[in-house]
Amino acid sequence: MTTIDPAVVGTYVDRLRRTQNELKTQGIDLLLVGPSSDLFYLTGFSAHESERMNLLMVPQEGEPQMVMPVLEAPLMKSISELLEVRIHPWAETESPSALVAKLARDVNGKKIAVSDQLWSVFLMRLQEQMDGGNWTPAAEVMRPLRANKDNREIELLRDVAERTDDAWHEFITTSIAGLTEEQAMLRLSGLMTDRGMGPSFGICASGPNSASPHHLTGDRLIQPGDTVIFDWGGIVEGYHSDVTRTVHIGEPDDEYRTVYETVLRANQAALEAVRPGVPCESIDAAARSVITEAGYGQYFIHRVGHGLGLDVHEEPYLVEGNKLPLQDGMVFSDEPGIYIEGRFGVRIEDTVVCTETGGIRLNEATRELTVMN
Amino acid sequence: MTTIDPAVVGTYVDRLRRTQNELKTQGIDLLLVGPSSDLFYLTGFSAHESERMNLLMVPQEGEPQMVMPVLEAPLMKSISELLEVRIHPWAETESPSALVAKLARDVNGKKIAVSDQLWSVFLMRLQEQMDGGNWTPAAEVMRPLRANKDNREIELLRDVAERTDDAWHEFITTSIAGLTEEQAMLRLSGLMTDRGMGPSFGICASGPNSASPHHLTGDRLIQPGDTVIFDWGGIVEGYHSDVTRTVHIGEPDDEYRTVYETVLRANQAALEAVRPGVPCESIDAAARSVITEAGYGQYFIHRVGHGLGLDVHEEPYLVEGNKLPLQDGMVFSDEPGIYIEGRFGVRIEDTVVCTETGGIRLNEATRELTVMN
Repeated sequence: MTTIDPAVVGTYVDRLRRTQNELKTQGIDLLLVGPSSDLFYLTGFSAHESERMNLLMVPQEGEPQMVMPVLEAPLMKSISELLEVRIHPWAETESPSALVAKLARDVNGKKIAVSDQLWSVFLMRLQEQMDGGNWTPAAEVMRPLRANKDNREIELLRDVAERTDDAWHEFITTSIAGLTEEQAMLRLSGLMTDRGMGPSFGICASGPNSASPHHLTGDRLIQPGDTVIFDWGGIVEGYHSDVTRTVHIGEPDDEYRTVYETVLRANQAALEAVRPGVPCESIDAAARSVITEAGYGQYFIHRVGHGLGLDVHEEPYLVEGNKLPLQDGMVFSDEPGIYIEGRFGVRIEDTVVCTETGGIRLNEATRELTVMN
Repeated sequence: MTTIDPAVVGTYVDRLRRTQNELKTQGIDLLLVGPSSDLFYLTGFSAHESERMNLLMVPQEGEPQMVMPVLEAPLMKSISELLEVRIHPWAETESPSALVAKLARDVNGKKIAVSDQLWSVFLMRLQEQMDGGNWTPAAEVMRPLRANKDNREIELLRDVAERTDDAWHEFITTSIAGLTEEQAMLRLSGLMTDRGMGPSFGICASGPNSASPHHLTGDRLIQPGDTVIFDWGGIVEGYHSDVTRTVHIGEPDDEYRTVYETVLRANQAALEAVRPGVPCESIDAAARSVITEAGYGQYFIHRVGHGLGLDVHEEPYLVEGNKLPLQDGMVFSDEPGIYIEGRFGVRIEDTVVCTETGGIRLNEATRELTVMN
């Protein structure tokens, strides 16, 4: 059985209530949420993602309902009582989508929002059962809630960021030349575990691999002359850290120094552009203009950042075209990079919170040009 | 960069070709596959599941195409060349769903199959861009391929099952009373890691928790008199094991012995019912009738089994109502259980392959009534 800390029951009750207000404001009749960070955000329940349908139904008014397999229903019993969510268990020989359709009643012309991460197989079955519904992604409903972190969330994000910094500072005191990327990542992961963080993800990209932003950590040997990017994170109570640091094995040449210093200035420019009311795309532009002016614009092939919280990537996205204004309490990555194919890449990533007075970094792992052995 | 073993390139080429034949047979024009076991099955590529769209497009005829973020495109370069899959990278400011729509051309009235695990947010965006398409789950296309394992797949499943047995046989030689469920599971997981298996999942349910089939392993102390269920697995080259064993701490009473022996007979009855041509639901019925005749029918609250391979749960499902005939090469779990709420539960689960001459167990961890301390 999953339980939630009684001290935070009010948080979930409040989130469900605010969600219903948001549904009203946006003229959405029903919100459907499958196993996901959205479900955890709303109820504190980590549902089992599988071929068996688990679905939270949040109507504009009245009691939220949870359709779940009879064999998993005991897991949510205590939470459902605390939050006044009614559980509707379905047996193995029943159709959960027919049950959802029955509970939703007449959906003709009704607007139904579906959580982003629900598997398509469930959506297609629901669309078949609930003909005439007007289906829309739930991102618009969830963003105003999830993107604006409350104080407890920011403290959790600060906590996990600081533990990650601490792991890094120990990591860079020992040599990594001669290790494979996997071995180096394993060592860093161990330092994360030692600090009480749950596993999340980790990229170690060495030498020419550092020019591939989402490189899959492999068995390449780290060697003198390499640029090595570490992009990794951990989890505390569901909240993620996400940090990138780039190091050089042995003394770097002038080109590396120029690229490193350019990325660092871009990272700083993005941070300084943060304040409430500024559109997301301006943060991207602030970093990009530094890199473009230095002559490396074509090598900065991704957006400057993404929101961070219960997901490693979530709203808001700091990308050209996103006019969404930043707000106090939004938390996101600031991660410009330069990637020269076949040679090397540099990325520096911090977690930033937008406050009334501007951007504040939650992690402070050293950004100095770091030489390792 | 991800690469695949040159020795198995032919396997993937053949799977893509058979998929296209299946599309022809079923009158489906286009198959869309997101990051998932389906994608790995077809290409050997483990795509990064995130808010950035990665989508394999398999038309009835001609070259498969892969729409993926420009920053991840290098990861699939070598595979795409070997398999003749054309990569279409999209930049951060472009719309990948518009790109998919453009590549798919006129979809009016066309039948489009979508892989089960694709996130709904992508399906809804595609439905908007590709108006007039006739959308359907891809399970019907993928099942004839994935559910019928080839010899290499069966050998991998046998390998991971045998390593799991081996871990269990070491595990039961030491005492677990006084450990929490989490500590006991951690010890078993360590024995799995020692044998070269990747992490998958693990349930340890002790005392009254054993009556909750999908119990979330927690901090309850295991103590004398407890029934303890372990349901766990590991991964070798993408293929899963999934075994359940139930033990008793100290000598059990007669009721436990009766329940245990009933579940064991049900497990054996299901195994003996397996042969090609028998409908899936008959395997469920074979186990269920043993339990019902013993007077415990109401306590067997789930189907008897599910397919096993690249997913822990996949086709075929052994459940009442499923008339699908078993075929040579299908691999699935055989896992009857009896759950008496508030008191205890017993489940015994093996992995079974259907062969021409009947069912063969891939794992042989002892099924004897096991007493631990």
